[in-house]
Amino acid sequence: MVTIDDIRAAAIRIHAFVVRTPLLPTLWADADRPLWIKPENLQPIGAFKVRGAFSAIGNLDESVRTRGVVAYSSGNHAQAVAYAAAVYGIPATIVMPKETPAVKVDATRGHGAEVVLCDAGQRERVAAEVLEQTGGVLVPPFDHPDIIAGQGTIGLEIAEDLPAVENVLVPVSGGGLASGIGTAIKALCPQARVFGVEPELAADTAEALAKGHRVDWPIEDRNRTIADGLRSQPSELTFAHLQRVLDGIITVSEGEIKSAVRELATRTHLVSEPSGAVALAAYRQGHTPPGRTVMVLSGGNIDPRALSDILAG
Amino acid sequence: MVTIDDIRAAAIRIHAFVVRTPLLPTLWADADRPLWIKPENLQPIGAFKVRGAFSAIGNLDESVRTRGVVAYSSGNHAQAVAYAAAVYGIPATIVMPKETPAVKVDATRGHGAEVVLCDAGQRERVAAEVLEQTGGVLVPPFDHPDIIAGQGTIGLEIAEDLPAVENVLVPVSGGGLASGIGTAIKALCPQARVFGVEPELAADTAEALAKGHRVDWPIEDRNRTIADGLRSQPSELTFAHLQRVLDGIITVSEGEIKSAVRELATRTHLVSEPSGAVALAAYRQGHTPPGRTVMVLSGGNIDPRALSDILAG
Repeated sequence: MVTIDDIRAAAIRIHAFVVRTPLLPTLWADADRPLWIKPENLQPIGAFKVRGAFSAIGNLDESVRTRGVVAYSSGNHAQAVAYAAAVYGIPATIVMPKETPAVKVDATRGHGAEVVLCDAGQRERVAAEVLEQTGGVLVPPFDHPDIIAGQGTIGLEIAEDLPAVENVLVPVSGGGLASGIGTAIKALCPQARVFGVEPELAADTAEALAKGHRVDWPIEDRNRTIADGLRSQPSELTFAHLQRVLDGIITVSEGEIKSAVRELATRTHLVSEPSGAVALAAYRQGHTPPGRTVMVLSGGNIDPRALSDILAG
Repeated sequence: MVTIDDIRAAAIRIHAFVVRTPLLPTLWADADRPLWIKPENLQPIGAFKVRGAFSAIGNLDESVRTRGVVAYSSGNHAQAVAYAAAVYGIPATIVMPKETPAVKVDATRGHGAEVVLCDAGQRERVAAEVLEQTGGVLVPPFDHPDIIAGQGTIGLEIAEDLPAVENVLVPVSGGGLASGIGTAIKALCPQARVFGVEPELAADTAEALAKGHRVDWPIEDRNRTIADGLRSQPSELTFAHLQRVLDGIITVSEGEIKSAVRELATRTHLVSEPSGAVALAAYRQGHTPPGRTVMVLSGGNIDPRALSDILAG
């Protein structure tokens, strides 16, 4: 299990490469639940994923790292690994499904990575081939202690900036973010509750935590949510962390997610992708306990046309 | 003239009330002109104006301050003074033109201020009446050393975070922001150039600096620009500062301003009002000298429908 010491070590590794995001107070919160926003959409590449990528790549032996890194992702992890590899001056190969929007493929190539397109469902196999050919190292999106520790640095910063925090709301997909933040918060702010947030349409972790074991939702079901960054499921490693550090899990509807994207743009002047806004949607339901509340805005990579439509309401 | 010591003193006064905004690196800048963004849209009320308001109100004698404050503004200064007064627990009266959009009147009232609506062109006279009736103190939008010093704290933070900065791009309207930032930068980073930025349609300061004296553009002309926060003109006090601290002034078109709003949303995940985006529009023209460049994003209060239209392109 990842410890607070692992997270502190990750913070040192990534310090020069990531933005120390501020904790933004809001003026429009419920009176008994003051709200702060941790805006990870302000990171390079627009999402928290850079923290895990720099943590993992920074912890490789230099002799290993120079052989290059490999990742499979159609989302923010692809760009995070491509960007971190470019900063380290090492080759990166990113395996992406053929259906990936061209804008995301181009952004990944823009960081200097080689992109290998593959058929749906084949990305792990193709990544294994690339690993064999290149001798490189796989940087998984969440299923690795260095990734969890990297994402956990967000919790470290929350604890530094608001030690008396009482509620922390974090999106859950593969669970790396919530595992890391929860581990940091439970170590440094034991009074605080940590809540995961999932779309109703991809609420596998809510069901899994209720049953006490991992469950498998068909990918066709999980793909229904607009929150395209929240369609993964925890691994054994992250699920073990989530069981230990989450005080509960909140599910939100598609309409609530869109309203939250709109509210973040109009009231906090932050562009959020749907996955990044779910914690505000959960806050808006009003069921979390009173007290000082922090929501993690995990990323801002939304198609301009989609944002335009949400704003036009 | 405002000095760096005045700005340091203002920084201490406002420290507890404003966000210490980070300097955000960009990945999409020109190779020879790396670009950082100072995101003042993340302040409470969504604009840098809180710095000046807290600086001015915080510097009042307590016996004076308790009588309350008065301001005239239809924009961000109204909300900034209303908010700062609420934090200090003192009455605020804000004089606004009758044409002010209801959403801005409501936001100002939402901070607990009394709003007095007046006919166009009458706001200074009406404010004088309110001052006489209430015995309160006027908080001007830019024409005061404490306001300039408050806005100058942005320059102090830029110098702290990027001491080797070479170019700073700042919007110019009444000139309080550029006067303060320019004073701080010239004192702490003497190698850096400071450029003001204005809409072509409200370029009175560009003309004034070229002529060496203030000029008066008809308000009907200045009202043509979409950048509604940049329709004021410098006072004698701010113009004297601008003459001393600006290395040049850049004018931008309405189309360039809209493109900059769009680029800030899509590439940096920051919602900017048109006035807040002009520094990026100036950067995009490509005429500033090579070197490490900081642009000040001054505010984010844009109508959601207007932002939606700009994003739909």
